[in-house]
Amino acid sequence: MINWKQYYHFLRFPSISSEPAHRDALLACAAWLEGHLKNIGFTTELWPTAHHPVLFASYIKDPQLPTLLIYNHYDVQPVDPLELWHNPPFEPIEHEGNIYARGAQDNKGQCFYVLEALRLLLEKNHSLPINIKLCIEGEEECGSQGLLSILETKAPSLKADWLAVVDVGIPGPEEPAITLGTRGLITFDCTLQGASSDLHSGCHGGLAPNPLQGLVKLLSSLHDASGRVTVPDFYKEVATIPKELHEQAKHFDSKSYQALFAVSPIGGELDFLPLERLWLRPTLEINGIWGGYTGEGFKTVIPARAHAKFSCRLVPNQDPSTLGERVRDYLLQQTPPGLTLSVHLHEGRGAAVRCPPDSKVAQAFAQAFSEIFQQPCRYILEGASIPVVPALAEASGATPLFIGLALATDQIHAPNEHFSKERIEKGVRIMMRGLEILGDV
Amino acid sequence: MINWKQYYHFLRFPSISSEPAHRDALLACAAWLEGHLKNIGFTTELWPTAHHPVLFASYIKDPQLPTLLIYNHYDVQPVDPLELWHNPPFEPIEHEGNIYARGAQDNKGQCFYVLEALRLLLEKNHSLPINIKLCIEGEEECGSQGLLSILETKAPSLKADWLAVVDVGIPGPEEPAITLGTRGLITFDCTLQGASSDLHSGCHGGLAPNPLQGLVKLLSSLHDASGRVTVPDFYKEVATIPKELHEQAKHFDSKSYQALFAVSPIGGELDFLPLERLWLRPTLEINGIWGGYTGEGFKTVIPARAHAKFSCRLVPNQDPSTLGERVRDYLLQQTPPGLTLSVHLHEGRGAAVRCPPDSKVAQAFAQAFSEIFQQPCRYILEGASIPVVPALAEASGATPLFIGLALATDQIHAPNEHFSKERIEKGVRIMMRGLEILGDV
Repeated sequence: MINWKQYYHFLRFPSISSEPAHRDALLACAAWLEGHLKNIGFTTELWPTAHHPVLFASYIKDPQLPTLLIYNHYDVQPVDPLELWHNPPFEPIEHEGNIYARGAQDNKGQCFYVLEALRLLLEKNHSLPINIKLCIEGEEECGSQGLLSILETKAPSLKADWLAVVDVGIPGPEEPAITLGTRGLITFDCTLQGASSDLHSGCHGGLAPNPLQGLVKLLSSLHDASGRVTVPDFYKEVATIPKELHEQAKHFDSKSYQALFAVSPIGGELDFLPLERLWLRPTLEINGIWGGYTGEGFKTVIPARAHAKFSCRLVPNQDPSTLGERVRDYLLQQTPPGLTLSVHLHEGRGAAVRCPPDSKVAQAFAQAFSEIFQQPCRYILEGASIPVVPALAEASGATPLFIGLALATDQIHAPNEHFSKERIEKGVRIMMRGLEILGDV
Repeated sequence: MINWKQYYHFLRFPSISSEPAHRDALLACAAWLEGHLKNIGFTTELWPTAHHPVLFASYIKDPQLPTLLIYNHYDVQPVDPLELWHNPPFEPIEHEGNIYARGAQDNKGQCFYVLEALRLLLEKNHSLPINIKLCIEGEEECGSQGLLSILETKAPSLKADWLAVVDVGIPGPEEPAITLGTRGLITFDCTLQGASSDLHSGCHGGLAPNPLQGLVKLLSSLHDASGRVTVPDFYKEVATIPKELHEQAKHFDSKSYQALFAVSPIGGELDFLPLERLWLRPTLEINGIWGGYTGEGFKTVIPARAHAKFSCRLVPNQDPSTLGERVRDYLLQQTPPGLTLSVHLHEGRGAAVRCPPDSKVAQAFAQAFSEIFQQPCRYILEGASIPVVPALAEASGATPLFIGLALATDQIHAPNEHFSKERIEKGVRIMMRGLEILGDV
């Protein structure tokens, strides 16, 4: 029933959005998607952007009926380190029920079962239960700048009641769940400047302020002993955790986490459960740090500059720009004596997103997941961010829900990414069933 | 009179001792030095070591006469960041009376005026006033392991009355000074290990302990708010500063320092004068730090590992091994929860060194500096360390003195290192005059 040949064809485009060399592959992939959607009965538009085009497709059964906007992306991550792949990443192979290829899951696999569900529904019923719009972008893996830049002008086309972001996962192979939200994200670079050039630590140690020491002092001041972020008003808009979410957050197996990642889940605020820290609490994480001599052997240097990259995950009610300013202002106030600090808050920030659990879209897909898995469907949250989603929800006016069949073991963004045929089949059935339920007014 | 061509030739060897790729350049440089010293009348030996050879040369006029052992090194520091150099670092150029090249001063420039002084004395007098031994090593910039490993067996060859370490400087271009001591040095690497692989900061932020955050916490705990090192017993053996040295230490011009280095001399312990902090107080400095994503743009990663390099400068009575253990033990006790710390104390540590101001070698070179500069010569100390010197002084049985014509503005260990032709000329005259005075028994 599922046309696996088309899945393989989709996977063979090396659509790595961050590498300019692959521009033609992205265009070819978008053109193929457009042809495919036309074939099955959709009206399509290829929206050009400064980088890679956005494929928009719609099936308007009746303007009076509700509309579901579905978000996917056809671009993929780079493939390095290539030598760790068992097969060339754009030549998919099947092994023990899994398909191995870059994008097999993220996000071509999850996009493919959406496309197959639509094709099969149209073949079966010569119609869909509701209006469907598809927004399949080509820059999710490198910041979604193209889609973000056209959202305002394309808002009328994107108008919808619900938004299904099909780019997330389930806690385990037999644990159906829908995701009611993601955290937001703001990212920063900072540089501490000391002397005008690198200095010898013997001739200047004890005299010149050391930017590396300033940096560790500065960054270590951002968390207190309990793991709480010390930036004033960092938690000001953060809601108290409701009892039912506190109960949901107890579903966490610290031992499995320790076994998978070789580390205890004890990062962040000591006063909260692990899943509360991941889902419901904002964080400030250092993501990169560098300065001074980092090569073989030793160099007794006091460097002129020290650098860091860091980011905050945000929760509902936290405005990214406001939080970005609070963090930046606090850091600037804490500048170590004798050094000069610059803090750069990046563009491309995104707020947290939430779907009401009693919304029709959440109810419909929870039911679909339950029926197909024959297990009760849980409501979960996602700690990571899909930066375009808050803006897409705003432009479309739709209630956003996150669904998907990813597992933490799919090796996305890593060598030997794979997705199981069984989950693709489940994905097709869940999408078909979810649309049917949404159509039952 | 000075053979500048030979100086340029010496500078062209890319003798970076810490980089294995340059092994041949070090061998070629040592061979060139050996040929040069043979030519001017010295007996030479190339002492092999596990890494780069030590050039030993001697001119024994009369075994009854006193012997001066002169120490230099022919190896140089790495050249990165290469893009900040105005000329290729091993293609010396002259600009406004300065020669720019890696090693132009440290230490090939200072070695060169020693060689020229010996050549010119021998040309003029067909003899030297006293016995001279030269020990020119090839691993000063990476720990002197080769020379240290052969000191015991070579002690008979090295035997001398005085040791002149020609690798230091003067406070200003018109301020002659000899250096009665240096600080010691111990160096460390440390790594904090978190999860078994890099993690996504969205999916793990608030869960996984972040080695970067652990590292900034750990390293920032090493100094208190007054700049004092917090390692227990770090200052236990440090002597109170005598009144006369406190007075000497007042000769420091903070405004000039600020003008030269674009930074105030406010690093280190707030309770001491700048020169006390540089000469008479031990320090702990971070020299390099790295981990996570450090490239263009942003990557929301919690890295598996974070790294740092740091070092301590030591003062008299501080035993390097004991201090190294105290620092390492304290760090291990402070290991952030959930992370694994490894601390590596490098070989090649060295204690602080002191020369009695009334020794013949100190008196002779003080007089030579005074005469050539036509200014009274000051007695100063040096904050930097030459780790092999304490062991070399012990093996040779010689009283060590530090001399040299370096200025703080020579950019050693940094891009655009340079040395002035005028100071090389002065160096030649000072060495010639110093040896003459030492010969006047």
